[in-house]
Amino acid sequence: MTVETIPVSRDLQSERRAAAEAWRQELTARGILCVNLISSPGAGKTSLLQATARHWSAGIPGSNPGPRMAVLVGDIATDRDAQRLAPLVPVRQLTTGGACHLELPLVKTGFQQLTSRELENAQFLFVENVGNLVCPASHDLGEHLRVVVLSVTEGDDKPGKYPKAFRTSDACVINKIDLLPYVPFSMEAVTADAHLVKGDLPVFPVSAFQGDGVAEWCQFLQQQRALRCCRP
Amino acid sequence: MTVETIPVSRDLQSERRAAAEAWRQELTARGILCVNLISSPGAGKTSLLQATARHWSAGIPGSNPGPRMAVLVGDIATDRDAQRLAPLVPVRQLTTGGACHLELPLVKTGFQQLTSRELENAQFLFVENVGNLVCPASHDLGEHLRVVVLSVTEGDDKPGKYPKAFRTSDACVINKIDLLPYVPFSMEAVTADAHLVKGDLPVFPVSAFQGDGVAEWCQFLQQQRALRCCRP
Repeated sequence: MTVETIPVSRDLQSERRAAAEAWRQELTARGILCVNLISSPGAGKTSLLQATARHWSAGIPGSNPGPRMAVLVGDIATDRDAQRLAPLVPVRQLTTGGACHLELPLVKTGFQQLTSRELENAQFLFVENVGNLVCPASHDLGEHLRVVVLSVTEGDDKPGKYPKAFRTSDACVINKIDLLPYVPFSMEAVTADAHLVKGDLPVFPVSAFQGDGVAEWCQFLQQQRALRCCRP
Repeated sequence: MTVETIPVSRDLQSERRAAAEAWRQELTARGILCVNLISSPGAGKTSLLQATARHWSAGIPGSNPGPRMAVLVGDIATDRDAQRLAPLVPVRQLTTGGACHLELPLVKTGFQQLTSRELENAQFLFVENVGNLVCPASHDLGEHLRVVVLSVTEGDDKPGKYPKAFRTSDACVINKIDLLPYVPFSMEAVTADAHLVKGDLPVFPVSAFQGDGVAEWCQFLQQQRALRCCRP
């Protein structure tokens, strides 16, 4: 029996890494900070984006409007999240048709569907991933920031149980803090557990529903854009 | 250039289906109803199993103890869920080391680690899948019943957004109903949405935390066992 090596695949991982890096650089050059939001279903990614959009559009009467943002929202089925966001910001729904996470080609297709008017002076592109605390952690979408959203109703033991989502993220939003009086959840315990996974992970307690912590979260995003994107 | 077809894979899907069916029949012959619990992270699968175990062990003073159960609990990392269940029932932790769902070989390995004493007169085997509302829906673990658990804090729009989890399930538990006063969630809306996906899906409102609905859930399980497993 002769043994032969058949080159049946290219080095897909390297190709994907390079494509994500090129896309990140393109967005950087345009002054757009890309944020990839990952979480369990129902942790409040869409609500956080609604709160972010409202915070920035609120501004001070008579002053300049806040930063401009656009959203690409990923789901297996339906355009429910896009419908929630459409009254507030330019948005496109990315429907995976069954796939458990977003990949870069679909994100780029969605971005290209945004009009130049919708992207005029855009400063932030949010990609709301499919609700899944596992698989999205393995896919680089060319984001500048990956942010994991955990809601207090999910329990304070989740960072250690889903370590990759926390280890590969640049920040963690603890959402639904308005429900803290009704659930067994310790902010200290979850922060300690998250820091066991990633020692320097910034943690933002937020109630997207009631608005607490949204200002601090938005300030963090603006600082990150100033640090990571060249255009002032 | 010559073209040649190389048989690099077997029909894995058929093989897996057959293996799951054989395993289901083996459990049926032993009188064990196997229940595969799937949900998002933190929806309350472990809490539901704790409440189930407590309900059955409570029984009536002086009467026979309730049905005997064992649990195999799947996680990417840590044995936290097994530790919570160990004081109540025989349990083994299945750690996937990164994989986003359980597969049958790991479940069978876990089952084989349960001692014959732990399985004495066993009537129910619960498999708590990895917290993920997407990928576990595509894998038959040889269960008799697949049950999707959704908590009210995740929102009443989830069945349509994660249709496969609901379409392939035999029942739906709506957990954390004790939090209904504090969240925007309609039992009518979620039931209607679930029934758009699967018209005859039984829906059980439960508070695993406070005990509401646990008796009805346990009664359903016993009815299902009487229907599906031959041994009385």
